[in-house]
This record gives sequence, C-alpha cells and structure tokens, in this order.
Amino acid sequence: MTQSIGILTSGGDTPGLNAAIRGVGKTCLSQYGIHIVGFRDGFRGLMENRTMALDGATLSGILTLGGTILGTSRDKPHKMPMQGKLVDMTETIVANYHANQLDCLVCLGGGGTMKNALRLQQAGLNIITLPKTIDNDVALTDTTFGFDTALGIATDAIDRLHSTAHSHHRIIVVEIMGHRAGWLALGAGIAGGADVILIPEIPYDVEAVAEAIKSRKRKGKPFSIVAVAEGALSKQEFELQQETAAKKKDKKLKEVVSVPELVYAERTLSLARQLELLTGLEARPTILGHLQRGGTPSAADRLLATRLGAAAADLIANKEYGVMVAAHGETSLAVPLQDVAGQVKTVPPDHAWVASARGVGVSFGD
Amino acid sequence: MTQSIGILTSGGDTPGLNAAIRGVGKTCLSQYGIHIVGFRDGFRGLMENRTMALDGATLSGILTLGGTILGTSRDKPHKMPMQGKLVDMTETIVANYHANQLDCLVCLGGGGTMKNALRLQQAGLNIITLPKTIDNDVALTDTTFGFDTALGIATDAIDRLHSTAHSHHRIIVVEIMGHRAGWLALGAGIAGGADVILIPEIPYDVEAVAEAIKSRKRKGKPFSIVAVAEGALSKQEFELQQETAAKKKDKKLKEVVSVPELVYAERTLSLARQLELLTGLEARPTILGHLQRGGTPSAADRLLATRLGAAAADLIANKEYGVMVAAHGETSLAVPLQDVAGQVKTVPPDHAWVASARGVGVSFGD
Amino acid sequence: MTQSIGILTSGGDTPGLNAAIRGVGKTCLSQYGIHIVGFRDGFRGLMENRTMALDGATLSGILTLGGTILGTSRDKPHKMPMQGKLVDMTETIVANYHANQLDCLVCLGGGGTMKNALRLQQAGLNIITLPKTIDNDVALTDTTFGFDTALGIATDAIDRLHSTAHSHHRIIVVEIMGHRAGWLALGAGIAGGADVILIPEIPYDVEAVAEAIKSRKRKGKPFSIVAVAEGALSKQEFELQQETAAKKKDKKLKEVVSVPELVYAERTLSLARQLELLTGLEARPTILGHLQRGGTPSAADRLLATRLGAAAADLIANKEYGVMVAAHGETSLAVPLQDVAGQVKTVPPDHAWVASARGVGVSFGD
Amino acid sequence: MTQSIGILTSGGDTPGLNAAIRGVGKTCLSQYGIHIVGFRDGFRGLMENRTMALDGATLSGILTLGGTILGTSRDKPHKMPMQGKLVDMTETIVANYHANQLDCLVCLGGGGTMKNALRLQQAGLNIITLPKTIDNDVALTDTTFGFDTALGIATDAIDRLHSTAHSHHRIIVVEIMGHRAGWLALGAGIAGGADVILIPEIPYDVEAVAEAIKSRKRKGKPFSIVAVAEGALSKQEFELQQETAAKKKDKKLKEVVSVPELVYAERTLSLARQLELLTGLEARPTILGHLQRGGTPSAADRLLATRLGAAAADLIANKEYGVMVAAHGETSLAVPLQDVAGQVKTVPPDHAWVASARGVGVSFGD
Repeated sequence: MTQSIGILTSGGDTPGLNAAIRGVGKTCLSQYGIHIVGFRDGFRGLMENRTMALDGATLSGILTLGGTILGTSRDKPHKMPMQGKLVDMTETIVANYHANQLDCLVCLGGGGTMKNALRLQQAGLNIITLPKTIDNDVALTDTTFGFDTALGIATDAIDRLHSTAHSHHRIIVVEIMGHRAGWLALGAGIAGGADVILIPEIPYDVEAVAEAIKSRKRKGKPFSIVAVAEGALSKQEFELQQETAAKKKDKKLKEVVSVPELVYAERTLSLARQLELLTGLEARPTILGHLQRGGTPSAADRLLATRLGAAAADLIANKEYGVMVAAHGETSLAVPLQDVAGQVKTVPPDHAWVASARGVGVSFGD
Repeated sequence: MTQSIGILTSGGDTPGLNAAIRGVGKTCLSQYGIHIVGFRDGFRGLMENRTMALDGATLSGILTLGGTILGTSRDKPHKMPMQGKLVDMTETIVANYHANQLDCLVCLGGGGTMKNALRLQQAGLNIITLPKTIDNDVALTDTTFGFDTALGIATDAIDRLHSTAHSHHRIIVVEIMGHRAGWLALGAGIAGGADVILIPEIPYDVEAVAEAIKSRKRKGKPFSIVAVAEGALSKQEFELQQETAAKKKDKKLKEVVSVPELVYAERTLSLARQLELLTGLEARPTILGHLQRGGTPSAADRLLATRLGAAAADLIANKEYGVMVAAHGETSLAVPLQDVAGQVKTVPPDHAWVASARGVGVSFGD
Repeated sequence: MTQSIGILTSGGDTPGLNAAIRGVGKTCLSQYGIHIVGFRDGFRGLMENRTMALDGATLSGILTLGGTILGTSRDKPHKMPMQGKLVDMTETIVANYHANQLDCLVCLGGGGTMKNALRLQQAGLNIITLPKTIDNDVALTDTTFGFDTALGIATDAIDRLHSTAHSHHRIIVVEIMGHRAGWLALGAGIAGGADVILIPEIPYDVEAVAEAIKSRKRKGKPFSIVAVAEGALSKQEFELQQETAAKKKDKKLKEVVSVPELVYAERTLSLARQLELLTGLEARPTILGHLQRGGTPSAADRLLATRLGAAAADLIANKEYGVMVAAHGETSLAVPLQDVAGQVKTVPPDHAWVASARGVGVSFGD
Repeated sequence: MTQSIGILTSGGDTPGLNAAIRGVGKTCLSQYGIHIVGFRDGFRGLMENRTMALDGATLSGILTLGGTILGTSRDKPHKMPMQGKLVDMTETIVANYHANQLDCLVCLGGGGTMKNALRLQQAGLNIITLPKTIDNDVALTDTTFGFDTALGIATDAIDRLHSTAHSHHRIIVVEIMGHRAGWLALGAGIAGGADVILIPEIPYDVEAVAEAIKSRKRKGKPFSIVAVAEGALSKQEFELQQETAAKKKDKKLKEVVSVPELVYAERTLSLARQLELLTGLEARPTILGHLQRGGTPSAADRLLATRLGAAAADLIANKEYGVMVAAHGETSLAVPLQDVAGQVKTVPPDHAWVASARGVGVSFGD
C-alpha cells in the first residue's frame, strides 16, 4: 500500500529549509512513490489542517530559495495561542494526522521542534525530524543546516570591518546571533579573525575585554574587532541572572531565551560605550540581526539539507520512525529522537574551537 | 625637467582609494616619468612630512585592497589638533610641499577634502583632487568612487532581510550610512526594494511611516523593510534642530555632522520601538555600520577609480591644476576646484530617484 | 481616457530585465493608472498575441530575479522564422497592437531590438525602448543595464584567477563575452588587473602578446592573466575576415556575429596553446560563458533599470513616443529612436578606458 | 628545551593554506613557545634550504588570503627535477632538517604530499601533515580544507547558469575540477541542482546523457545543466584507458592524472558538440578552470584550517608525530600517516551523495 507522509517547518527562519523539503519530497515521490503533503506555518497549520500539495512542480526550483515555502511559526502543540490563552491542541493534531491518513510526520526544526516532535511521538504519531538552525545547538549531530550559511554571512561582515578598522584606530563591536549558544559568534570570530569573542557560555569581565584591547594598542595595533553573541553576559549580569533564576527555582534560565532582539541591541550599544570609556578609543557598532537568517543557503547547507532529506525518505520507506536524521561526516545517522529532545548543545568552555581561538590569540574576556 | 608630485588620502575610509592611487601612480611613472611620493594619514602626514615611496612594486597588487595604503585622517590643514588645541598649520604644509620640490599635490577625498584642498590652492599650491566617498555627495560629478561598493553592500543586506521578513510578520529597520545626504539609503532602498526609505533631506512623520506599514498589512503584506539613513530626522527633530541652529546663527547645521554613530544607532532602535507601538508588529534592527566602508571595491568602483586616476595623471602632465577630476558618463571632466568646494550634493526632494521610488510604491513617511 | 500599453523583452538574457519591467509597470499602474500587458518571448509573442497580465501581484517580488518573467527570443518582426522560412510578420504585429488597443509598445533590448523597434515605429506604432545588454554597445546612453552585473562577475573571476596564477608560474587565459564590442573584457580587464586585454576593436599580434608575457617574466612576474573577448581577432584573422567581407560586398562584417560560442571557445583554447609554445609557460583556460548573463542583477543595475523604467512611464503619460530612455549621469534622457537604431557603440581604439588601461601597464597585443 | 619545527605547503593551490599556516604558527608561538620556520615552494625549498621566518608579524593578516605565503610546488623529494633529470634528494632534505635542528616537519598537502611525507618519515624525520585539497580525496578525514571554498564557487556558477538556461532552451555544459575524484562536481552538482552529473567514478554513455536531456524536454523543460568533472570518461574512453593500462601493467591508471587542463577543456567542448547533435538543442560551454582554486577561503575552510592547525600544534607539543590531523565532526583526530598515504578517496558509486542525487532526479548518464 502507498505510504503517505506530512511535512512541516517550525521555529525561526533558516536557510536550507526549502532544500530539505525538496530532498525529502523528490526522493519520496520519485524513488518510493510515497505521497507527501505539506502543512503551513509549522504546528499551527497542522492543528488547523491547512495543507499545501507538494508535487514535482512545487518542489522544482526551490533548492536555492531562502525562507520556507511552507511558512513557519514558533507555536507549540501543547501550548497553542488560542484567543489569548495557551491551549493544549495535541488531540486536534493527532486527529488531523489520522484524518490525512499519514504514516509519518517529518518535522524540520531546531531544539524546540525536537521537543514538540517528541511529544507528538509520545502521543502516538510516527515522527522523523531534521536538524535545522543557524545556532548549531542541536545535540548528537555534527552540525545543522543553516549554520554554515549564517557562519559565512557573519564572517564576511567581520572581513569587511577588518579592512576599515585599521585605518581609524577604533573598536568595532559586531553583534552576532545566538541567545543561548555561542557557536555562531565563536565560529565567525575564528574564521573572521576577531580579536575578542564574547559568548553566553563564557561570562566576561568588561575590564578584561578593555585590557585585551589596550594590550593590542600597546603592541601597535590600535584597532580591535569584538564579536559578541546576543546572549553574552558579563560576570555580574550572569550572577544576577543566576540569583533571579534560583529565586524562581527555574534552573534552566528560560527567561534568557525570551529577551527580544531590541534589548540585545541596546545591551550591545551599552557595551560599546563602556569600552569607549575604559579604553579611550572610539567604538562603532554593527548589528547584523536578521541578515544572518536570510538569503540563499550556502552550497554546503544545500548539500547537507539535500542529503539529510533524501536519507529521511530512505528511513520512511523502511518505516524507521522516531529518529532525527543527524549529519555524521560524509554520511548521515538516525539517532533516537528521545536522545536529542531537550538537549541544548552549548559550547563547552574547554571545547576545541575555544582552545584553537585562544591559540591564535583571541581573548574571551574571562 | 622631471615633474614631481605628492598624493594623499583624506577623510573616511572608502573602497577604491588604492585603485585610484595605483591609477595615478602607474600612469605618472610609466607614461610620463613623473616622480610620485605618498604622504601618510592625510593632511597630518603632509604637515609632519611623513612620506612613503610609491614605486612600481608598491603600486602593484593594491587594486583590489580595501582601505588605503597611505592611511587617512580627518585632520584639516588650518585646524590641526596639536597638543589639545586646533592650530593653523598651513604654512608648515606649504613649506613641506616646497621642500619636497613638488609640482602638484593630488588629494583624494570627499566634500571636506575639497574645501581643505582649495585652501591649500589659495595658499599657492598646485592641486588636483579626486572625488571619493560612499555618500555620493560631491558636487559636479556623476558619482564618486566608493558609492557603488557601499550601494552593493547595503542592497545585499536588504535582499537577505527580505527573504526572512516574509516568514515572520515583522518590521525590519535597517540603518544605512549617510549623515547629511541620503543617496546611499535611497539608492539601496530602491535597489533592494525597501518599503519605506527615510533620508535626511525628507523629514518624516513617524505616524505616516506606521500608516504605510499598516496599509501594507491590510493588503496582505504583514512585513515591511524600513531603510533609514543615519541622519534621517522626524519632522519634530528637524524643527528642533532648525531652531537650535537659528539660535546659534549657524545656518549650516554643523552639529548634525558631529553626532557619533552610537547615537545614530540608539536613535534607530528608538524608531524601531515607536513603530512596534504604533503598528502592533514586532520590529527587528539591523545596523550595518562600518560594513559599508570595508572590503574590496566593486568592479565599477575599481574601473572608475582607475580611469579618474589615469585622467589625473594626464592633467598633471599638461599642468592643468586647480581642478577636480569628475566622472562624466564614460569619460571624465576637469571641473574647477573652487566650483566644487563647499558644495554638498544632497538629494533634492523632487529628484528623479525619489520620483522613481515613489513610482514603485516606496513611502518616504512624509 | 485610460492609456494602455504593451511591453516585451527581446534578445539575449540580461540581468535587470525584471527590474525594468517592474519599474515601468508599477509606475504606470500606481502613478498614472495606465493599463499594461506583457507579450511573451519578444516579438514572437507579440506576433502570436501571447500575452501575460501584469498587475501589482505579478510585478511584486521580481526586482531581484535574473532572466525575464516575459521570456525572450531573438526573432525579428520582418524576418520571423515560420515553418522553415523567414517571413515578414510586421502586418500581423501591427494588427495585434491595434487589437489590444495599445497606445504604446515598450521594447526592452539591445542594438538589434532598437532596429526592430524602429521598423515597427515606421509601420505606425508608438514605441519607447530601454537599453539592456551586457555588451554596453548601445549608442547615446552612458550605459545599459546588465553591463554592471556582467562586469562584476567577470571581474570577480579575474580576482580569483589572480590569487592562484601567482603560485604556479602560469598564463591564465580567461574568455569574456563580447562578439563585436569589447567593453566587457576591457572593463573587467581593467577592474580585475589583467595583464593583457584582447578585444575585437584592436586586432592583436600573438607574438606581441607572448612578448608582453615574457617581458613580465623577465621582471620577476612569471604569471600573466590574459582577458580575451569572444570576438577578439589576431591581425591575420582580421585581414582574412575583411577580405572575405569585401568579396561578399558586406562591409558590416555580419558573419562575425553569427559565430556560435563553441567556436569562440575553441579559438580561445587554440590561443592558449599558441601562447604555451611561444612563451614556454603552461597556460590554463577559463571560459566564463553564460555565467555572465545569469543571477540576480547588481544593485547598480537594479537602480538603473528601475529609474529608466519609471522614466519610461513618465514619457508614456506625456505621450512622448519614438524615443529610447537613455542613462545620463544621475538622470535619464529621451533620445530619438532613429538616432540610436543601427548604431553599434564599439570601443574607439583611443578611448579613455583604453588609455587608462595602457596607463596602468596593460598590453593590447598591438 | 625549546622545540623547533619547519612547515611547508606542497601540491596545487588551495584556499585555506594561509589560515592553516597561521593556526599552526600562532599556536606554536603563543601557547607553547615553539620556534617555527617556513620552507618556500614545498619540498624543493626544503631541499634547497630556502627558508622564511615565521614570527607573529608575518603570521598576522594572512587568515583571509588565498594562495600560500610560502609558495608551493609539485616536486617530490625522491624525484626532484635537477638539470633535466629526476634525482632522489631525500638525503639532502634529511640533512637540511637536521641542520635546522628541527623536531618536526609539518607538511600541508593532498594525497601526493601524504606519500612524500611518509617517505620522509621512513627516512627518519618526525612528520605531521594536514589534509588540504579542493578535491576532497584524502582518506580518513571527514573533509579537507579548500573543498568547501571550491564547492561554493562551482555551485555559485551553476546557480547563475540556471537563471539563464531557462530563457533560451539550451544545454549548458559546465566543467568542474576533479581528475580522479568526482567529489567536487558531485557536491556542486547536487548543491546547484544540476540535471546531469558526470564523474570519473561512473563512466557515462553519451546516448544516455542525451536521453536524459531529451526526457526533460518532453516534460516541458527544454534546458539542462550538465556538470562534468575534468576526469569524467565515457564508457568507451574508460575501457580504452583500462586496456592501455593493462598493456602497460600499470594498474593505477597514472596517465589519467597527467592529462593537462587544455585537453580536458577540449574534451568538454567535444562532449558539448556531441550533445548538440544527439538532442537538437544548442549547447553552451562554461569552463571554470583555476577559478576554483582562487580567492579568499570560505568561512568554513578558515575555521577548519585554523582548528586543524591549532590541533597540529598541540600534537607537536606532545611529541605525537607520524600522524595526519583529520577533521572529525566538530573536533579533530590524529590518524597514522601510513594509513592515509597512498589511499585516494574516490566516490564509491553507491555513496550516499550519489544516492541522494539520484533521489532528487539527477542522471549520471549510466
């Protein structure tokens, strides 16, 4: 009997989503004759049964497109905003899954999506997930699609800033995405040759940052590039946050996640002002913002998304459900969804990337 | 007798400076046997007689480099910062010019440089200038080198923001360089398809901006890109500034120029917050900053800088001094320096670019 | 009474066509209430009355797209291929123009399109044209849209080749588009810092090219980049062609145009082999081909296409027909179509670009 | 006692070499106080004892540069061209190693370099290698630096060709580097959405390629992109080569490697002509050539080269010699050099990438 599957994209915008949809869809259709239907706007569309036919024509020409043809949302099955309240809509979702006679639901998303997908699995659905996020913070996979594209954009920005920082004896503070995980700021900081890298996992001392900049000045380099992740915190801010969290008995520091981008930007400008005062050098800000989520995916991300998508189709044909398709060297690996969900892969402070950054002279302000 | 010339770069960093230095230098050396010496860090280096030999080897391989091999500064001959004071160092500069036995001084810069160069001409030096600035605000030339590169960078940013603005029903506010002239925000806004463009020359009404965004939402487009020049002002801010200026009897509004980039960025974040309140949509900021001054010059800027540089060499060989080498269609034109200096080419509110932006549906918030 | 216009794109693919269609269309619709209809595949679609509605939705989101949403062809009204023959279909075209109750036909194209558009004007139609081509060979306009994009692509290629030519003591021969006009090879050669530039307008002597390469080697630069336009000819080839042309009494050398790209590529490989023999250095070929016609238009081309498109709409509203909308500095100019048609703007051998290339040390092999 | 090491780059030009030199060098100097000296032009410079001091200043600012500051050559220690003969210079090299009082020699290169480095190890030197090549054909590492950059360039080319192939009903044949291994053509073909991919590991039938193109035409897609690796062979050519090899009792098909790029290009033009004849469609060639080796390394390659370089320094400090530093997920792995040398990692015809390409509809012409 012909298999039938659904597919949705959930969470923040990420380059490579369309390449992955195409990879899953074309392989299902042409290799296995599996029928495929798209749900719009993530779990919300699944709940509202808003579908999109995914045939060969729809899947053609989308490989290079940014965004997602299915639309996305951050809504969760068990906490769906309904007329001002958060309502558990899991039952409706399960009903729609069965009404569409699906054999499997493919969820493309990051850490939050993995948790939501696991909940639906526990509610009885067959699930396969693919790891996408520019943050690279999904567990048990070499990498996630979207990360390489964002890495390229942020690195290109640092490159341009470098060529102008020289001429004017300045500090350039460039804010890079990353609420909880610093992979992107760390990776781009290394690849772009930043002088200081500040990430959420390594609370910084602003005096130490200033000292690193002044030390460069003394060595005849009166300019510095500071790459700062959105969620980077000074040691004082970090302790304050820990205390608040302790009071709330919320050990997971969830409120960190909820800080909106305008507040991050204000914090970055404030850091720039502090560094001006402490170093006597002028500071100039660059805030990349959603630049990092946009545009055509990089070649590596398209290749990754395509091969993970095709691998998902192979698993579906074999009825191997309950897994995330992880990147593993040149190939892919099916890892149990329950081992992934709820895990945030942050940067271990002694990680090889941190060590190699220190090796080439980067200060983390610690 | 062999001619001998000096060359310097002055003002903000701009892509194409090295291409122009190479164009002047190689043509002088190989076509005319004119000797050429570089002065470091703009007029300051000329005053301090800090020179750099410019031979074939030095001029080789610099075509594609951002920044300037000569260094630059914003120091003015007649107001040179010396031990905490501004001192008129024109005499020293004139003396150094003669000590180096120069027949001509070539100054690469923007509007401020034109004024300073004219002062030196009036002090008796032979001067030729080339128009460089990412702001495109030099009079009597089709364009300036640096503008096309910055236009490309800012447009590329808007492109990326577009592909992600769609998915999340948001306002994206992108700040683009331009203190007094809005050419860059206007050009990139048109080329990138921004929905709202705010420039210094057209004071805006924040309610009108919000209405343009809400009107798009009503038409099924719940996202908007707002391209805002650093120096854009609301009508209230503009009036306040005019009054302050009137009190100071300073009709040229010089203080606008002196606002540093951190204040611009704060103003941009404030605008984003206002738009959130007025529209009920989330706003996300991108602040390009010095990104726009960095990196390799675009092909068009390299071609322009090379051909203006070569034309400058021709003029020197013909002893036609006292002119700026202007871009004019495919060729160049020598315009009297005194006609250029002191003129800031701002965007006329009824300029063809503004009209064509309105034609394709852009709001200026006026 | 409401005006009504048609629009078509004709000739080779060029970046910026969609930006121009959007500029004409949006301005017509929103500023003047002019109705607009597209014809598919150039003059062929006009002859077959295959139309495409161009409303606000269709014109939205096309600014950044390469190619043309209308399709294009090289078919000519008076020599339309019909069942193996070339038939004059002018009457049918005129009839379709009237059947669609058009007030004007807007033709986007290069030199060939200008001639065909003039023929239709002489047959009684109201015509406005816009100059598009990557070759930059249309008369009486500063430039054409498409040229800046292709210039950027070809220059970027030369940049990459430079960084590798150094290491291996090689000649790199890079073939750049341009059958009759060498603007693109010349511009990219200057912007990319090529060592030799060969263009159709300056027949070369292969021994002189080899000598330029050997001379560089003697100066310690054992690598050279040769930028060669498709239509570049050695002096012998040029004379042979002239003789053949004289025999055919065809002074316009029309056959040059008809050589297909595979033959150009073979000629380029042959040149590379000759240079290997004459210099004793290894040669490596790069043939850019249709790369140069593809991808999103550059910011400058989008801006140019948008403002020329909007200017065309203004002319239509004023019923100023029979003109090409030319680029002229920051603004545009309406030039009589009859002054443009039939003129090919080739590179004058003493043009300022050639002079500035020689100034920075480029050899033309002459 | 202070350690002292030498470093060299060998084989073809590859983006990321300077990033790796900087990673090794800066980490050695700043973390471990290890002294480091560079040898120019690969093993030739080691043999001739031509050295380059590598201090902090020399290592600064090279992260983003293409090429290699050390220079490179393809010369082998045991077959060094000396006055027209190939001479075994191993002893001289060993002597120079000791004369420089080195504790270790770091060799950056591809497959050939691994073999040569192993020979020097067997001659008694302490060796560490890093895997660089755009071909991705080194064994026992996830990837090699240089590959991601070349992948991006080739994919970008296919993207541009796509946007123009549509308009003109054509076959575009794009030649991509890869003499023996098809990873680059395969990866870029998948990432760029090529319709046909031809690689050395899967001999093709030109009729089958034509049939795939004609089949697309029948489905309303009268254009096709054919991505062909330099070393791709038709089944007939492959068999002929096998026979010749058998006669020569040379099972490794070494002559494949020695075909120069001009011959590859001619073979590609010939394939284009055959496809024109077999399909009735026009074909257009693009030959990327050394484009793929040039320019600044991608962010991913800089990150990879930096972290492998830093890991090499750690190994040196621990005196763990005789290994290649392999990429392994986010981290690195030291693999015995003898397990790597002599292994060429070609594409297994049933590899996951090939399968996923077939999944999305790519033809391999087999």
